[in-house]
Amino acid sequence: MALIVQKYGGTSVGSVERIEAVADKAVAARAKGDDLVIVVSAMSGETNRLIALAKEITDAPSAREMDVLMSTGEQVTIALLSIALEKRGCSARSYTGAQVHILTDSAHNKARIRDIDAARVRADLEAGRVVVIAGFQGVDQHGNITTLGRGGSDTTAVAMAAALGAHECQIFTDVDGVYTTDPRVEPKARKLDRITFEEMLEMASLGSKVLQIRSVEFAGKYSVPLRVLSSFEEGEGTLITFEDEQMEEAKISGIAFTRDEAKLTILGVPDKPGVAHEILGPIAEANIEVDMIVQNIAEDATTDFTFTVQRNDFDKAKRILRAVADRLGAREILGDDSIGKISLVGVGMRSHAGIASQMFQALAKESINIRMISTSEIKISVVVDVKYLELGVRALHDAFGLAEQPGAKNG
Amino acid sequence: MALIVQKYGGTSVGSVERIEAVADKAVAARAKGDDLVIVVSAMSGETNRLIALAKEITDAPSAREMDVLMSTGEQVTIALLSIALEKRGCSARSYTGAQVHILTDSAHNKARIRDIDAARVRADLEAGRVVVIAGFQGVDQHGNITTLGRGGSDTTAVAMAAALGAHECQIFTDVDGVYTTDPRVEPKARKLDRITFEEMLEMASLGSKVLQIRSVEFAGKYSVPLRVLSSFEEGEGTLITFEDEQMEEAKISGIAFTRDEAKLTILGVPDKPGVAHEILGPIAEANIEVDMIVQNIAEDATTDFTFTVQRNDFDKAKRILRAVADRLGAREILGDDSIGKISLVGVGMRSHAGIASQMFQALAKESINIRMISTSEIKISVVVDVKYLELGVRALHDAFGLAEQPGAKNG
Repeated sequence: MALIVQKYGGTSVGSVERIEAVADKAVAARAKGDDLVIVVSAMSGETNRLIALAKEITDAPSAREMDVLMSTGEQVTIALLSIALEKRGCSARSYTGAQVHILTDSAHNKARIRDIDAARVRADLEAGRVVVIAGFQGVDQHGNITTLGRGGSDTTAVAMAAALGAHECQIFTDVDGVYTTDPRVEPKARKLDRITFEEMLEMASLGSKVLQIRSVEFAGKYSVPLRVLSSFEEGEGTLITFEDEQMEEAKISGIAFTRDEAKLTILGVPDKPGVAHEILGPIAEANIEVDMIVQNIAEDATTDFTFTVQRNDFDKAKRILRAVADRLGAREILGDDSIGKISLVGVGMRSHAGIASQMFQALAKESINIRMISTSEIKISVVVDVKYLELGVRALHDAFGLAEQPGAKNG
Repeated sequence: MALIVQKYGGTSVGSVERIEAVADKAVAARAKGDDLVIVVSAMSGETNRLIALAKEITDAPSAREMDVLMSTGEQVTIALLSIALEKRGCSARSYTGAQVHILTDSAHNKARIRDIDAARVRADLEAGRVVVIAGFQGVDQHGNITTLGRGGSDTTAVAMAAALGAHECQIFTDVDGVYTTDPRVEPKARKLDRITFEEMLEMASLGSKVLQIRSVEFAGKYSVPLRVLSSFEEGEGTLITFEDEQMEEAKISGIAFTRDEAKLTILGVPDKPGVAHEILGPIAEANIEVDMIVQNIAEDATTDFTFTVQRNDFDKAKRILRAVADRLGAREILGDDSIGKISLVGVGMRSHAGIASQMFQALAKESINIRMISTSEIKISVVVDVKYLELGVRALHDAFGLAEQPGAKNG
């Protein structure tokens, strides 16, 4: 008998009909003998309805009161799901974040979980009940209601699984698993049966939207096996797991990409210690996230500096950089807001040489010019003109044989 | 500087616009230097929306989960009102029933308040904040969310006022006070400036819908001065208070009435000890509330027994009575489901003889036949054919001079 934590997002509980379907799934899992904890989000649309009410009053509602308001969304869902379970003769009990002591810090709207007291949930499980928990919310040490911010329900599920020592945390979404790349770009994209946490983290941070990165980090940190699967179709989904021999066979697991990138270059800045901080410090202070950073080899005591930001931060970053350039006596500023990033991700590349050159060759074959390169142990990212993005993804998917099962061609 | 607890019902917070109006009222009260605790209901319509969601799943949702569901209604209101207050520069903080430890028993949907820990509210008041509290809800000793049932927000306000030792508990409604009788029946009905708790209890239990009877009982028990006033108009409303000399001047405070009554008579039952219980026991077991009970003087060892019930219990009560009649060998059963009840209420009648005969005379003058009579220390109730109800109310209102201020004609 296994203990499973399941999480259903807003679309999966978007109507009473969908909630009844979730109840059916839960009853089937119970019938297999598993103990079940279910974490749910607000019904889709509800969050926007609540935000609209607050915005009717003011554009700047307090973060504390917004948390009080927003947390009602999941509370409605837990009650309705418990009612649907009990209708099926399945004993159930619902809890808000506060009721199961999901203790967070006091950073309203983006709180982080500090601790969970799982005693109450355990007692219900022992009494044969399905426990239904409101995702996305917690309570700080003073008893104030907090919310975890975007994707918070995933984090709640993982944290609950960790606290209970669950055998698996299953995240039900509107896709049936993690793919080698986005099937809308490469129709031959293949669903992965397994992927490592490290790879999943890279995939998530590089724009694959299946799971929120915080929940993956959390699951990795607390060694919670995570499974992504569809709440609309049957199937085993994708298991996100710890590295094992089987994984080593594939060099590359997938290709992630982001379209909304921009790059900025500052030419001819003094090549001296501290200059990187002088350039990037003001950018960071303006809350602009910098992704890739490249510094060229210095010529005649000056150097060039290039970095990428999200496209909607481009104008703001350029203005800041202009002031920096004046102060440093830089020669020129260049900018390009029509670039994209393609990343090969795979733990296998650690032990296989030549992946990078194979990648560059595949792109060259399609006459795609590489603007920037950045590497880590398990990924290689390149920046290209955004118009070549889809072509590049398909070329690499083909070159690394990702459409086939590992062990076949790509073994 | 006084400490005031204000309560606004569903209509008073029925839209964002209305919530902003409540915030304006609160800011005005703060400007006078009063400390303020505000108890609010769910926005009107919200409760029905939530019930409809549950009913889509089942007609018999569990009481515990319904409380989890319903309690979100007030939680939305407290957040929105706090946001509206803060927009006006008025420091505010919202709390659910659980957050301020409104401890209740575990009778879901109709819980009773046992205790309130007011420490947190006091700390906020001392810090100069307006405290906004979700009405209608609490938490049991196991941390389960409970609701107080109909009119529960009034009870929350009174209990909070008692716990804080507030100077006054103000119940804002859609009427501007308590009237001598329903102005829709008697246009000359007069708003009372003051009424005693005992009278208010009789008025409430006899069908005057201004306040829920439980909140009046609660206020009386804990000596909380209660004021009913309009959230839509200016005015002092009606103060519900403890008996004082001023009150004694008026013999009668008001006329309450109920339309939805029915009466049942069982003829020729044995006149022996225990027969009343044999008749009314099965009725009570069926959860039918019996109001007036009259037993006639016995003739030849048998007696007649008449009692009233709510009209929608009439058929059920008649079926039960039929079985009882067979068992007791009663002669006949009579029923009438088109009766109404009119009640004169006033602490003044205690010390004034002749009120009853004055009442009967006024009704006789209009040829209204009295079917049953029942009296208590501060009220006289008569049952009449429902078609005469309005006429009877107006005749009595006139006969006792209720349209005039006490001390004038009726002094």
